[in-house]
Amino acid sequence: MTTYRIAPSILSADFSRLGEEVRNVVAAGADMIHFDVMDNHYVPNLTIGPLVCEAIRPHVQVPIDVHLMVKPVDRIIPDFAKAGANIISFHPEGSEHIDRSLQLIRDHGCMAGLVLNPATPLHVLEHVMDKLDLILLMSVNPGFGGQSFIPHTLKKIAAVRKMIDDSGRNIMLQVDGGVKVDNIAEIAAAGADTFVAGSAIFGKPDYKAVIDSMRGELMKV
Amino acid sequence: MTTYRIAPSILSADFSRLGEEVRNVVAAGADMIHFDVMDNHYVPNLTIGPLVCEAIRPHVQVPIDVHLMVKPVDRIIPDFAKAGANIISFHPEGSEHIDRSLQLIRDHGCMAGLVLNPATPLHVLEHVMDKLDLILLMSVNPGFGGQSFIPHTLKKIAAVRKMIDDSGRNIMLQVDGGVKVDNIAEIAAAGADTFVAGSAIFGKPDYKAVIDSMRGELMKV
Amino acid sequence: MTTYRIAPSILSADFSRLGEEVRNVVAAGADMIHFDVMDNHYVPNLTIGPLVCEAIRPHVQVPIDVHLMVKPVDRIIPDFAKAGANIISFHPEGSEHIDRSLQLIRDHGCMAGLVLNPATPLHVLEHVMDKLDLILLMSVNPGFGGQSFIPHTLKKIAAVRKMIDDSGRNIMLQVDGGVKVDNIAEIAAAGADTFVAGSAIFGKPDYKAVIDSMRGELMKV
Amino acid sequence: MTTYRIAPSILSADFSRLGEEVRNVVAAGADMIHFDVMDNHYVPNLTIGPLVCEAIRPHVQVPIDVHLMVKPVDRIIPDFAKAGANIISFHPEGSEHIDRSLQLIRDHGCMAGLVLNPATPLHVLEHVMDKLDLILLMSVNPGFGGQSFIPHTLKKIAAVRKMIDDSGRNIMLQVDGGVKVDNIAEIAAAGADTFVAGSAIFGKPDYKAVIDSMRGELMKV
Amino acid sequence: MTTYRIAPSILSADFSRLGEEVRNVVAAGADMIHFDVMDNHYVPNLTIGPLVCEAIRPHVQVPIDVHLMVKPVDRIIPDFAKAGANIISFHPEGSEHIDRSLQLIRDHGCMAGLVLNPATPLHVLEHVMDKLDLILLMSVNPGFGGQSFIPHTLKKIAAVRKMIDDSGRNIMLQVDGGVKVDNIAEIAAAGADTFVAGSAIFGKPDYKAVIDSMRGELMKV
Amino acid sequence: MTTYRIAPSILSADFSRLGEEVRNVVAAGADMIHFDVMDNHYVPNLTIGPLVCEAIRPHVQVPIDVHLMVKPVDRIIPDFAKAGANIISFHPEGSEHIDRSLQLIRDHGCMAGLVLNPATPLHVLEHVMDKLDLILLMSVNPGFGGQSFIPHTLKKIAAVRKMIDDSGRNIMLQVDGGVKVDNIAEIAAAGADTFVAGSAIFGKPDYKAVIDSMRGELMKV
Repeated sequence: MTTYRIAPSILSADFSRLGEEVRNVVAAGADMIHFDVMDNHYVPNLTIGPLVCEAIRPHVQVPIDVHLMVKPVDRIIPDFAKAGANIISFHPEGSEHIDRSLQLIRDHGCMAGLVLNPATPLHVLEHVMDKLDLILLMSVNPGFGGQSFIPHTLKKIAAVRKMIDDSGRNIMLQVDGGVKVDNIAEIAAAGADTFVAGSAIFGKPDYKAVIDSMRGELMKV
Repeated sequence: MTTYRIAPSILSADFSRLGEEVRNVVAAGADMIHFDVMDNHYVPNLTIGPLVCEAIRPHVQVPIDVHLMVKPVDRIIPDFAKAGANIISFHPEGSEHIDRSLQLIRDHGCMAGLVLNPATPLHVLEHVMDKLDLILLMSVNPGFGGQSFIPHTLKKIAAVRKMIDDSGRNIMLQVDGGVKVDNIAEIAAAGADTFVAGSAIFGKPDYKAVIDSMRGELMKV
Repeated sequence: MTTYRIAPSILSADFSRLGEEVRNVVAAGADMIHFDVMDNHYVPNLTIGPLVCEAIRPHVQVPIDVHLMVKPVDRIIPDFAKAGANIISFHPEGSEHIDRSLQLIRDHGCMAGLVLNPATPLHVLEHVMDKLDLILLMSVNPGFGGQSFIPHTLKKIAAVRKMIDDSGRNIMLQVDGGVKVDNIAEIAAAGADTFVAGSAIFGKPDYKAVIDSMRGELMKV
Repeated sequence: MTTYRIAPSILSADFSRLGEEVRNVVAAGADMIHFDVMDNHYVPNLTIGPLVCEAIRPHVQVPIDVHLMVKPVDRIIPDFAKAGANIISFHPEGSEHIDRSLQLIRDHGCMAGLVLNPATPLHVLEHVMDKLDLILLMSVNPGFGGQSFIPHTLKKIAAVRKMIDDSGRNIMLQVDGGVKVDNIAEIAAAGADTFVAGSAIFGKPDYKAVIDSMRGELMKV
Repeated sequence: MTTYRIAPSILSADFSRLGEEVRNVVAAGADMIHFDVMDNHYVPNLTIGPLVCEAIRPHVQVPIDVHLMVKPVDRIIPDFAKAGANIISFHPEGSEHIDRSLQLIRDHGCMAGLVLNPATPLHVLEHVMDKLDLILLMSVNPGFGGQSFIPHTLKKIAAVRKMIDDSGRNIMLQVDGGVKVDNIAEIAAAGADTFVAGSAIFGKPDYKAVIDSMRGELMKV
Repeated sequence: MTTYRIAPSILSADFSRLGEEVRNVVAAGADMIHFDVMDNHYVPNLTIGPLVCEAIRPHVQVPIDVHLMVKPVDRIIPDFAKAGANIISFHPEGSEHIDRSLQLIRDHGCMAGLVLNPATPLHVLEHVMDKLDLILLMSVNPGFGGQSFIPHTLKKIAAVRKMIDDSGRNIMLQVDGGVKVDNIAEIAAAGADTFVAGSAIFGKPDYKAVIDSMRGELMKV
């Protein structure tokens, strides 16, 4: 039976009281904290870096899952490992030496992931399945506001699910962008097991109610 | 008589409870909040962006003074203006069109500043004095840890003080890097009037005590 | 039955009287105007930009089909939309966020296309077929002079034709580079329906004669 | 007695009939044609390149004065020399090897110039006065619309005039940005001798009337 | 029957007496000299350039096989051709116009190759098989020290071998990274025919003994 | 009395027997070895890196003086320090944080220098005189062949000599480009004390004869 994980994206939390926010969302049932790093180069926005990761680290026991929307990626990887990250994922466009960047993450004691933009072909995964702990499919374009879940993602999830199953390896299949209570079941049915949700959770007054509803939907899959 | 301003750098605050931190430091006597933005390109670190600025904005009434250590600078300027910044300064290396970037900041209703690295010559200021509200002299190299106040900065402060006085304009002269209770008087004596202090304030248990000590030192100048 | 379109490339027209040139070539039967934009970065040449597009816009009613050989692409897309472009296509290498750039073109009311260099694999198309109105296959390397039609392109056209037919969508398949009266039939037979021709048309005294010959060849397919 | 030169900027001409435009403006008394090249990298716009220069070359006998707002500059210099340029100027920010880029222009048989943005210090000129035939001071920020003449430019013109006079060399002092009939005398009085004017000339129905008015103003200096 | 080639990588030779080193290794049976060029941009190291190639050229008759770990590649290709290179290969990430870069190598009279990093998909080869004389699969990440042969490479070799055989063309299949006497047979069995070895050869006192052992292993395939 | 130093540039030595070359030139009287590093980005050539420095290190006792014509500079500085460099100099254009790069060189136990291109103003030196052990003035443009000594350099040498004398510090004033027996006295008279010579020494059969002639000329200053 599939283990589903809810990963609230800190990007929609209240940045003036992050420690409290992450404690609350974990108390409400979050399985991990999704940490969105943007550098104003790979994407047109700048968010938060290693110092913020380090600050929230003592507040929660669940994994911190760092999604690097930066280019290039190598220099900052050790900084996040030292700041307490458990999973570090990056976009293949962010490294000329993808195999090596994955290895670098692992050498620093973290789990490693690749993130695919909506248009990115799956072939970038083909020769590094051995080094992946997580594959994140973007269901919106990262760094740009006001988008909703791109329907084509469902087909892509199914294709990646097959690649993972064929590999025989234990790789999380995460989806990020427009995930909500009313589409999480469909996304899970397509093959995803890890769900990033930002405003869907932090935008509501009762985090537990939302996460419970999501889990309820996932029970139906 | 010179008006001195203490600008605690948020970079040394506790990022898990920033709202509380900035309220506390303002209650302790801070004149403005210095907000350090690093993009992992112009400097080898990534800190905080517009979303964090927006989150702390409602917590304080004092000016938020955004120091952009990013390159290029133009795209992110309107984002910070919308996020509530009052002053925006940048490094001349970060823009090909410095006059225009200063104008862009002003067109968005903010005060505009230029920041000079320890090695940067003063001539970059010469043709834009008309558009400056603040000049920030770095007394350490931005983005690198473990440095102390570079002594040569004192001469540079004096030279900029002369340029400002000659211009007849009202321009803040800010210094950032290694400013402490025991050197603030000397820095003020050289001509600075606005003092960024990070760990010197946030690293101590009693913010008011530090700020009071700094003001005490400034009284002696 | 296939609708074939002849798209004369303005790059071979007389730039000292472009209005007259585009009126003449449309009068001679051109279906659209192909507008080649080079930025001296993505390709080693610099040609023409939005101001030139805007200047010729009132002279013709046919679509202006803008081919962006620039990197990055996003900033200039709205400029061309405002300048009267009807179709805007770009190279996937020119954008980190291809799905978003296609959407940006559509949000500005234009048709959107992707352009593949001779060596570019077809997989870049796979996850964005839903957002494509045009696929342009380069049959020479863009931006470099003195090349002739690369024969391997015929196989590539056939493969893209199959992708388009399988998608069930209405997507133009355009070919650019070394297209002439004596190979246009072969190119059409492989599956292309839209033909860019520069010197083959503008290099001849009688545009209508060339376009008529091309159409004659296309009748034989 | 100073020789004054009027250099209409082609950027404001009608790009659909450039040959006619440049012939008309020369007939109206223009001394040279100012050709603005933007690459969408050094400035946020893309205009016209060597092919357009080559197309207008046969239409006029006066010098074509190419202003490169591109970065880097070296690759495109020979292209413009071959396309018929007589003067080629560039921004110091556009070359790591400014002395060499100036030499490259001269080796291709053209006159060489440097262009200073409003904020650029004069010291970049100091060690290359020997290789300069033209110094262009921007009185607006290049590549951005809707600006008017920056008043500080007058002081800068005077300072450059002194540098030129001290050098004993014959170097044109050109000004570009917001030059009009009603300020040209003041600009000339400050020390400029070559005047770029775009919409001030091409935006009016009678080019000769404008140029005559400008010359009339210059007589008063 | 397969012709196997041993290509000692000069990177592990003694750079203080390169002429002697290459003569010795050729006398010991090397079939070609592998010349590793790193530019401190595409990879984090800087090695040797055209002048060094030119200096060793007169010392050996065997082909010099230049592996460009540089980005971009086009400017330096003619330099290496003039310096006596016989084969020039590059990474597809190093050129926006891969087909053209391959053609450029051929136009300068050299054989042309593409190099694939461990994570690079094979699809980059698909549309340029006609222009390839060599395919180099990296079995470690180029430019980083202390790595051993990545096992997944064997599957990749087999897949490329099939592509080459299907093409009917004569293309060398080269492998670089961690190749030693004790794995060369396995690598050859997977389909490789050209073997780069650095420290495995130059790190040993008797080059001939190593090369003979390698050939002995290859006899068993 | 001034101590003059002759620094033969390894760039003109025979790269197939560098160890022998540097031993010979030191035996002939060279005071240091000038090591030219080009990265094909800051200058259009790629020469030699840390591995070559390490290889020649055991062959000579004199200082190895590494001139970095690379951009950016920070990553490669520790590599050269480990490879045995004694002096490391770089161009200010190669670092955003010049003071910090100088400090980095010193922290690795080397002497630090800045290099000025022919057009670079002297103001870049102003605020870092405290951290300089060497100032190198280029008397040709680095990375481009076939140039001769630029006469204006003599004035620049005199101006830097004054800056050094005024500082009261012990800073070498080095000149590189077109230095020969017949102009070395003039260059020394202007204020230089350290002379890079490439083909003037390595291009002649008798290194000692050239160096002796240079010293003879320097005796006359």
